[in-house]
Amino acid sequence: MLHAFEDIVAYATQLLAHAGLDGDKPRVIAERLALADAMGHTTHGLALLAPYLAEIEKGSMSRAGDPEVVVDRPAAIVWDGRRLPGVWLTAKAMELAIERAKVFGTCTIAVRRSHHIACLAAYLPIALEAGMMAVVACSDPAITHVAPYGGKKAVFTPDPVAVGIPTDGDPVLIDISASITTAGRCGRALAAGERLPGLWAIDADGQATDDPSILASEPRGALLPTGGIDHGHKGYALALWIEALTQGLSGWGRADAPIGWSGAVFVQVFDPALFAGADEFRRQTGWLAEACRTSPPIDPARPVRLPGAWALAGIARAKNEGLALQPGIVQSLLPWAEKWGLPPLAD
Amino acid sequence: MLHAFEDIVAYATQLLAHAGLDGDKPRVIAERLALADAMGHTTHGLALLAPYLAEIEKGSMSRAGDPEVVVDRPAAIVWDGRRLPGVWLTAKAMELAIERAKVFGTCTIAVRRSHHIACLAAYLPIALEAGMMAVVACSDPAITHVAPYGGKKAVFTPDPVAVGIPTDGDPVLIDISASITTAGRCGRALAAGERLPGLWAIDADGQATDDPSILASEPRGALLPTGGIDHGHKGYALALWIEALTQGLSGWGRADAPIGWSGAVFVQVFDPALFAGADEFRRQTGWLAEACRTSPPIDPARPVRLPGAWALAGIARAKNEGLALQPGIVQSLLPWAEKWGLPPLAD
Repeated sequence: MLHAFEDIVAYATQLLAHAGLDGDKPRVIAERLALADAMGHTTHGLALLAPYLAEIEKGSMSRAGDPEVVVDRPAAIVWDGRRLPGVWLTAKAMELAIERAKVFGTCTIAVRRSHHIACLAAYLPIALEAGMMAVVACSDPAITHVAPYGGKKAVFTPDPVAVGIPTDGDPVLIDISASITTAGRCGRALAAGERLPGLWAIDADGQATDDPSILASEPRGALLPTGGIDHGHKGYALALWIEALTQGLSGWGRADAPIGWSGAVFVQVFDPALFAGADEFRRQTGWLAEACRTSPPIDPARPVRLPGAWALAGIARAKNEGLALQPGIVQSLLPWAEKWGLPPLAD
Repeated sequence: MLHAFEDIVAYATQLLAHAGLDGDKPRVIAERLALADAMGHTTHGLALLAPYLAEIEKGSMSRAGDPEVVVDRPAAIVWDGRRLPGVWLTAKAMELAIERAKVFGTCTIAVRRSHHIACLAAYLPIALEAGMMAVVACSDPAITHVAPYGGKKAVFTPDPVAVGIPTDGDPVLIDISASITTAGRCGRALAAGERLPGLWAIDADGQATDDPSILASEPRGALLPTGGIDHGHKGYALALWIEALTQGLSGWGRADAPIGWSGAVFVQVFDPALFAGADEFRRQTGWLAEACRTSPPIDPARPVRLPGAWALAGIARAKNEGLALQPGIVQSLLPWAEKWGLPPLAD
């Protein structure tokens, strides 16, 4: 069934408040998770709510207070996230970077010891609504899934990066990563008894494979960087770049051998109005977007689309018609609703 | 034969000075082109000297003066390059961004109407020697070689991006692009009567091909974005990102339908010392570099290497033992040497 978008946000807010998060944390997190579902990033939306509640309960996600400001330059900022909810930290970092970018043209914030940040693309609308271009990247220094090009042993996480680009029409919302696929996608294929759609991984001997069990088997294989066996040096380079921005600038990462679900986060905002001008920026990006949309499609049934086009349509649909929750989410929240005497969500 | 690195720089400096470039332009350009050769980027080194001299002579590359400062915020800067030599503009932008990053933590410079900027990786040592992390990206809005994912008609240039990352040992020098290959590489394969090493392009019907003639034939094909037919949405996204940084922030690009060899340039420098600390940064990136180097290789004969390892070895070799010029370069400079009464370079 379809739920009113605001009802879902309100329900998730209640649960997070009952779990003990203070201030505006419950609402900010609920909004970003619901938005991720609306955008089609269903593995990184409300499916994370129950796991987050469990993390809060066991004390591995902090409940209260603000990040510690390590430095404030003021357009170069480092926070220690104190394992506060990463979704809230990232949304707050985006808001602060926007305010500072309005003054300095650009602002960069690196956050160490954040908890998990969910869907990167879900932060982009905050910047885009303010007319800003934004970059969000993260890595999880406690996890290794992706091998360097030519190597057998994983070193990196997929290291996603999302980029929001205003145009004179719909904005562009990029959400890519330094690896072809993710552990989550492998898990889904494994559960469904399917192969991966391509040779996106290597087994423990370094042989390219479409076997989604390589991260679950022993000895373990690894995911291939973007470009794969053919030109994976490009994804490998992107991973090094993103881990330097997230872990290097924040001064916290793999060298510290951290344990547990976590994140090193990079947020950067550009105010086009303080570069060559907002209209000039949108004139260029709008022209590019139109050139892409009108590039004749290889398959006439599949016109060239701009990154984010489906996500924007999904947001509009969720807000106008309502949001359908993924199977399992209502069930996953039942024990928490019961615990705090809340009615269950209708399924 | 091997030439002393300094002799090559001095010779190229003389030619560029005779061509009429003022101030330090001849020496700055000569140094970066020679460095590109030393780093192994031989198509973007001294092979460009004769074409640059021709551009200067016909007046399509400006000889004198400074870029026009469009805005200076002061950590967000836009220059109008006035079609001055792009190599000089980019080196100067890098130097200025380093000075500003020392004060503000980071500095971003977008340059419009630059002339061609040659080898992006050759600017990274300027930042790395100062302990900085740097990003250089460019696009050429007069040229279309790369198709958006799913489209048949080219929209982008390869849109290279170079990233220099200090570590506690050798730095990492990334130099990748949003497409799998370049027009130059296709031209070399075509001249040698070879195929491309993979399905890196599409023909005019959108069929994936290893035929290097697709940009030279009529109707024209296109290069595939990084990720290719399998996952080229990633390279497509990278192209949109880089063209927004270069053309959007500088306010000049494809919407202006420019003509001639040119460049829109993005330079961004981070001073790790003003984020979480230079030592903390290098501790993280050094750990990562070591983890990559020691990832067991798929092919025991080919250990995992860090991006830039060959380039750094090439620089050391060129400075210690000398630099061998690519075939054809000495010949290409003969008419210019003759014109200005200079001795020819020994071949």
